[in-house]
Amino acid sequence: MANNEFEYVRPEEIEKRSFEIITKELEEQGIVLTGDKSPVIKRVIHTSADFSYAESLIFSPDAVKKARDLIRDGAWIVTDTNMALSGINKKRLAMYGGEARCFMAEEDVAKEARERGVTRATVSMEYAAKLDKRIIFAIGNAPTALITLNQLIKDKVFIPDFIIGVPVGFVNVVYSKELIINGNVPYIVNRGRKGGSNIAAAICNALLYGM
Amino acid sequence: MANNEFEYVRPEEIEKRSFEIITKELEEQGIVLTGDKSPVIKRVIHTSADFSYAESLIFSPDAVKKARDLIRDGAWIVTDTNMALSGINKKRLAMYGGEARCFMAEEDVAKEARERGVTRATVSMEYAAKLDKRIIFAIGNAPTALITLNQLIKDKVFIPDFIIGVPVGFVNVVYSKELIINGNVPYIVNRGRKGGSNIAAAICNALLYGM
Repeated sequence: MANNEFEYVRPEEIEKRSFEIITKELEEQGIVLTGDKSPVIKRVIHTSADFSYAESLIFSPDAVKKARDLIRDGAWIVTDTNMALSGINKKRLAMYGGEARCFMAEEDVAKEARERGVTRATVSMEYAAKLDKRIIFAIGNAPTALITLNQLIKDKVFIPDFIIGVPVGFVNVVYSKELIINGNVPYIVNRGRKGGSNIAAAICNALLYGM
Repeated sequence: MANNEFEYVRPEEIEKRSFEIITKELEEQGIVLTGDKSPVIKRVIHTSADFSYAESLIFSPDAVKKARDLIRDGAWIVTDTNMALSGINKKRLAMYGGEARCFMAEEDVAKEARERGVTRATVSMEYAAKLDKRIIFAIGNAPTALITLNQLIKDKVFIPDFIIGVPVGFVNVVYSKELIINGNVPYIVNRGRKGGSNIAAAICNALLYGM
């Protein structure tokens, strides 16, 4: 368990040592992760120190492979916070031709959201849907982002290529994630209330680092 | 508990509704928060959907008042990740004359860290210590940032004005936080392994929004 003694680890070895501890403690809990989900789940635990993600992260069939194929094809990543955007390894993404974007702080988005009485996340998703790009959506904050994507799919306006659905919180968060789990778009979703911009970024980076 | 039904809440009311749910569920758990710690703890739960923070966030005497006095005096906030920097309400901080900074991605910092075999967080803290500013350190990632600050204090090189110590992880994280709890600098620390850049930013914003 967590202890209070200093352990000298060289800077470049800290992450490796952390993953060893995570793997060992998961095993102690009777959880042995295999396949390409394993590094994604472990990186989320690394980012949160919260082992409950081992149970709550849900993957559609071949989700990790599909997401990596999209990145290899130059897909963009669109986030719903600048914080998630900030955490994604954009240099690594650029190696495959992709870019990461967040439209939440754009003035037009805020103005339109105010006028229509919807969230900025809703307007951001509609904006992204008009880009002529393959897109992985990485949603770590706003359930209304997932609700909007689901509506665009239902209305046959737009089909996202992939959804990382890990908003955090208390109002419509659980609901919005179940929409994605019950839909037809490939996804990685954290069931329940937990998630966050840091979790969204960690999942993107786990996808990128494992390629 | 978390439910799967849609609840219509107007965009500008979502945060208020979330805090109502958090307050109610804390009470159901027998936890009634009072005083100026309450909005800080609730904002951290809002950011993480993790109620365990109600027990693990530790405040030095009058911590919230002291941090707000510093902000009012134009103190800067120095973070150990650009992600935390990205999450802090910098406009609000600027109202009091303060600025938020992160030195982690600067080339000089990376170069010096490599040469000395220390982390970039260590070099970043030493760099910040040389600024002629009052500083609130908001550490959400690197235990070596806290270990370095503690060393600077012990060596009488520099005394930080305030430390938000919420690194997350598995290698020396618990240890580094206990150093701050056992020191003489005012702090808000999350005891244990949990924390993160999002938690650091949420604490800064709770301080700013309550002023």
